[in-house]
Amino acid sequence: MAETILNRRIVMASRPTGMPTPENFRMEEVEEPCESPEGGVLLKTLFFSLDPYMRGRMDAGPSYAQALEPGGVMEGGSVCEVIASRQPEFRPGDIVLASTGWQTHPRVSAKGLRKIDPALAPVSTALGVLGMPGMTAYTGLLNIGSPKPGETLVVAAASGAVGSAVGQIGRIKGCRVVGIAGGPEKTRYIREDLGFDVALDHRATDFDEQLKAACPDGVDIYFENVGGRVWDLVRPLLNNFARVPVCGLIAQYNGVPAGEAASAVPLRSVLVKRLRIQGFIVSDFAAQRDEFLRDMGAWVASAQVKYREDVVEGIDNTVPAFLGLLEGRNFGKLLIRP
Amino acid sequence: MAETILNRRIVMASRPTGMPTPENFRMEEVEEPCESPEGGVLLKTLFFSLDPYMRGRMDAGPSYAQALEPGGVMEGGSVCEVIASRQPEFRPGDIVLASTGWQTHPRVSAKGLRKIDPALAPVSTALGVLGMPGMTAYTGLLNIGSPKPGETLVVAAASGAVGSAVGQIGRIKGCRVVGIAGGPEKTRYIREDLGFDVALDHRATDFDEQLKAACPDGVDIYFENVGGRVWDLVRPLLNNFARVPVCGLIAQYNGVPAGEAASAVPLRSVLVKRLRIQGFIVSDFAAQRDEFLRDMGAWVASAQVKYREDVVEGIDNTVPAFLGLLEGRNFGKLLIRP
Repeated sequence: MAETILNRRIVMASRPTGMPTPENFRMEEVEEPCESPEGGVLLKTLFFSLDPYMRGRMDAGPSYAQALEPGGVMEGGSVCEVIASRQPEFRPGDIVLASTGWQTHPRVSAKGLRKIDPALAPVSTALGVLGMPGMTAYTGLLNIGSPKPGETLVVAAASGAVGSAVGQIGRIKGCRVVGIAGGPEKTRYIREDLGFDVALDHRATDFDEQLKAACPDGVDIYFENVGGRVWDLVRPLLNNFARVPVCGLIAQYNGVPAGEAASAVPLRSVLVKRLRIQGFIVSDFAAQRDEFLRDMGAWVASAQVKYREDVVEGIDNTVPAFLGLLEGRNFGKLLIRP
Repeated sequence: MAETILNRRIVMASRPTGMPTPENFRMEEVEEPCESPEGGVLLKTLFFSLDPYMRGRMDAGPSYAQALEPGGVMEGGSVCEVIASRQPEFRPGDIVLASTGWQTHPRVSAKGLRKIDPALAPVSTALGVLGMPGMTAYTGLLNIGSPKPGETLVVAAASGAVGSAVGQIGRIKGCRVVGIAGGPEKTRYIREDLGFDVALDHRATDFDEQLKAACPDGVDIYFENVGGRVWDLVRPLLNNFARVPVCGLIAQYNGVPAGEAASAVPLRSVLVKRLRIQGFIVSDFAAQRDEFLRDMGAWVASAQVKYREDVVEGIDNTVPAFLGLLEGRNFGKLLIRP
């Protein structure tokens, strides 16, 4: 009777050890009824998000979210169009922010869906500068980083979705912003397009010297999203009372590279320099969502905060795009248009 | 013409390597005029304080205070009587809080002296529960620890000047307080006299098991004043959103013991558990002095906060007492009555 629809979805075939490989993923194609489930909605995915944190979900063991089990659909944020609905508040054609992960036609409960107004901004920004990454930057920098005019803020992965927002908000708050990125294209972008005060290429052979020279007054805020070697080089530059919001450790998501130690902070330097080192994830500050949308919406509208999207077409290209993200090969907020 | 007075003082003869020895100190006796210096005061020391932080001052290299140079008088807080004064605001017989260190008859500028009212509390408490150690406990626990009713607070060196105040303030704030101390006398004291919920002896062979059993709901606040092995055992017990005010690392003040690593926090656990690790010294919160004196004065007056002093008679016994402090042999706030 009812028509069917082909839902294409990517599941974790097996847990990766270290850097994931294509074999850790599997595409599934499922013929499903072309109607909403009882009490829920049928969606068509317009964009889904690829983010570094997804690597962590693939590991077993305790983290801030439950681990994904083998066979499960890769999880994450998405922007979808409602195709069919059994919930009066969602009508076909509505655009919603969802958490349906790597799939083309999710059939889900309406719980947790949030309507997006396409008139306000491109809908894809709900996954980027006006979504989770933007709010991660905003809440972590303002709540933990406590930026003050004239202070030096250092941020790595600075052309990425989180880092680019951190640096630009830091500029708005009056900080001198030193961004770290990989390669001339990205450093040019953060300096010239985003207005960072200094842009450093971590691939430069004298990167350690460049970093020191870029921070003649030390570092007051280091927004930590990479860990590894950058952390080791920034740590000695931290000033008394420096703040370190710890948002990610992408350099060690695939395990600690041979010859490197797991990134750590000695308590002696915490004491002597009176450092504040604090981890967070964006949901810890969920109560600040309205404030974030108000401020960030205004900054984006006035172009005080710019953003860049790296949109990959086709769900078949998801896995290579994700592996590239883990190696820093994306340039801007990485999205799949399936 | 003028009479003279014999000032006996202890200087650092040489920098210690690891645990200090008596040879690192030297007593000097100086015949000085029995009158106040130009614009200053002549004092007679009633008590001077011995504190763990003094070990740090003996090292060269950067810390939060300038290092003491060999030949310099050992520094620290004192309570003194004014003998002679060229400053109208200080009269002979006045009792003052000073920073004159390990000496009997300091002749100093009046700058930084603070009058003490002997009617309010025993004057020695200005070096203990109503002084630097008490304020260290109060400001670190309340500003960084943010204690909430029902939370589990762990504090080591719990019979000491800072630890005992931390635990009792934690109780006042509704926490379940687990104290760690060395030996049956101290654990009995913190449990029975101070009202800690649990008292653990870190010398027990199954201390690690006892600690785990004492924290069935994990640890929400760990007030760090020792580092070393206790830190390594507490760390896995920290709950999500746990706070760690870092106030001292007495276990490693004499250097890192062989076979031990320098105490550190892995950034991965900071991230996954969203820990807040923050160093401080009491002067960072100097603006809260009045608030501290008001609250702590009331708690001491009502015996909600009790304190214990370990008063050693005679300046000649200072060095053994200090070395004992570094090994945990004192019992309560250590003071010298010279």
